[in-house]
Amino acid sequence: MAQKQIVAYLGPRSSYSHQAALDCFDPEAFEFHPQVTIADIFSAVQTRSTTYGVVPFENSTNGSVVFTLDLFCDRDGLFSDVQVVSEAYLDVHHCLLGLPRPAPLSPANVTKIYSHPQAFGQCEKFLTKHLKGVERVDVSSTSKAAEIVKREPGAVAIASRIASEVHGLDILAPNIEDSPDNTTRFLVLSTGEAQESNYDGGERRDKTLIGFTIDHARPGALCDSLRVFKDHGLNLTSIASRPSRVTPWNYIFFVEFSGHKEEDGVKKAVKEMADYCLGYRVWGSFRDRQKR
Amino acid sequence: MAQKQIVAYLGPRSSYSHQAALDCFDPEAFEFHPQVTIADIFSAVQTRSTTYGVVPFENSTNGSVVFTLDLFCDRDGLFSDVQVVSEAYLDVHHCLLGLPRPAPLSPANVTKIYSHPQAFGQCEKFLTKHLKGVERVDVSSTSKAAEIVKREPGAVAIASRIASEVHGLDILAPNIEDSPDNTTRFLVLSTGEAQESNYDGGERRDKTLIGFTIDHARPGALCDSLRVFKDHGLNLTSIASRPSRVTPWNYIFFVEFSGHKEEDGVKKAVKEMADYCLGYRVWGSFRDRQKR
Repeated sequence: MAQKQIVAYLGPRSSYSHQAALDCFDPEAFEFHPQVTIADIFSAVQTRSTTYGVVPFENSTNGSVVFTLDLFCDRDGLFSDVQVVSEAYLDVHHCLLGLPRPAPLSPANVTKIYSHPQAFGQCEKFLTKHLKGVERVDVSSTSKAAEIVKREPGAVAIASRIASEVHGLDILAPNIEDSPDNTTRFLVLSTGEAQESNYDGGERRDKTLIGFTIDHARPGALCDSLRVFKDHGLNLTSIASRPSRVTPWNYIFFVEFSGHKEEDGVKKAVKEMADYCLGYRVWGSFRDRQKR
Repeated sequence: MAQKQIVAYLGPRSSYSHQAALDCFDPEAFEFHPQVTIADIFSAVQTRSTTYGVVPFENSTNGSVVFTLDLFCDRDGLFSDVQVVSEAYLDVHHCLLGLPRPAPLSPANVTKIYSHPQAFGQCEKFLTKHLKGVERVDVSSTSKAAEIVKREPGAVAIASRIASEVHGLDILAPNIEDSPDNTTRFLVLSTGEAQESNYDGGERRDKTLIGFTIDHARPGALCDSLRVFKDHGLNLTSIASRPSRVTPWNYIFFVEFSGHKEEDGVKKAVKEMADYCLGYRVWGSFRDRQKR
């Protein structure tokens, strides 16, 4: 029997990234390896110690995952072979988890709340209403938060329903996210030309992720860069930016647009865009899986 | 003697926001009131319980302050009278603070690191090199971190030099920020047409902050919105976005551009832009204080 290919995800087990990886890849055909940080996933893909890596990219309530964007900045040139080959959308339902407790939930009888910063950001309304003023402790994942709370009576965690099962915690409040249609978008990384999994037979639409820097001294440079997409009939589906860290108030922009990098219109747009940019990198093309 | 006007800033005392407020306003002429959250500053300005509010907006290493951007989204219409009247740039130097300790700094003899999430983001290189794997605890401000560490031997804080004096802590390592030119940009909020303070006599350049939403179903809508600035010779100086939280993957965009809202070119650009937007709000015009 052939050795199974590996999928790296942001661990520990029972994280939302784990769930997304299981949704993207057949558990019968792949092995799933948790990683400690998003940077570890990028490294594992670059060094070929994994075939695929699943990284959180954006949340519909809380916006870009800046840790992931910073890795796409690749300021030290560590991930030159990494490509984006697919995307996945996961409906996120956060729960408040804790050890069984007799008293009702109130700031007076909760000592601390553990979670990932993104999860805190997605449950602000619930926390303001029910647990205002309680100390928040930022940990590396929602699973980790559940693990800690298992050993700390009085503390609670914001984590997934799956985490309550894995760690044997009570669900003190289900679905506490601000937005009922809270969705996290993941990108799948690889070095090769990976095959699409889970092809659903629908009409195929592609999109492409590109990162670029512009000359800020040149008026209209950003506008000119973006106009080439419009000129070629390519719709922008997202735009984000991070500091370049070379010069203050200079940025690396990330844009996604409709179309595949092998299409003529996209090739022309990218070629024209290069005239307005100091540098750019096409991170890959992949099927658009957004539900409409 | 007339009552002093109030300046609200993100507390507690000795925070970077406090420093920025002191840089912007004459301590002889104003009273400085710390606030617990950035939302409290917006509220205090809206309700006229303060004349001015100083809020962190963007850091040259770590990017946008999303808490502040989310308040500018004003999704619940709470801050309809708030305007941006000025900006300020503060050089940020983070220090590692702790109680006096005999042992050298290593992951083995540091129990926890307390700081604000933005400060963690700005010291990644130092932390990876010297304190890899040590638990990080996210607190509401760097001053708060110093305050906690004062009572917790073994723990350390990332905070300002001023915080070491206020809380009587040792500076275990000075200037640990990734970027030596680490700068935070603050915006000054008010409801009235506030006067510029600290006018330096130099040539005046203004910029204007606008927030807007576009119809994502319309191809090229973002590009069209941005093009009007170029058409009127107005250079974009920043762009950022946050989820609209109305529909997933729809965004509220924030753009700053050269020019004052009372100038003809700006008025025309904004009027044309309105054709491409679902909605927009001009947050104010203020002198561009960026050092060049």
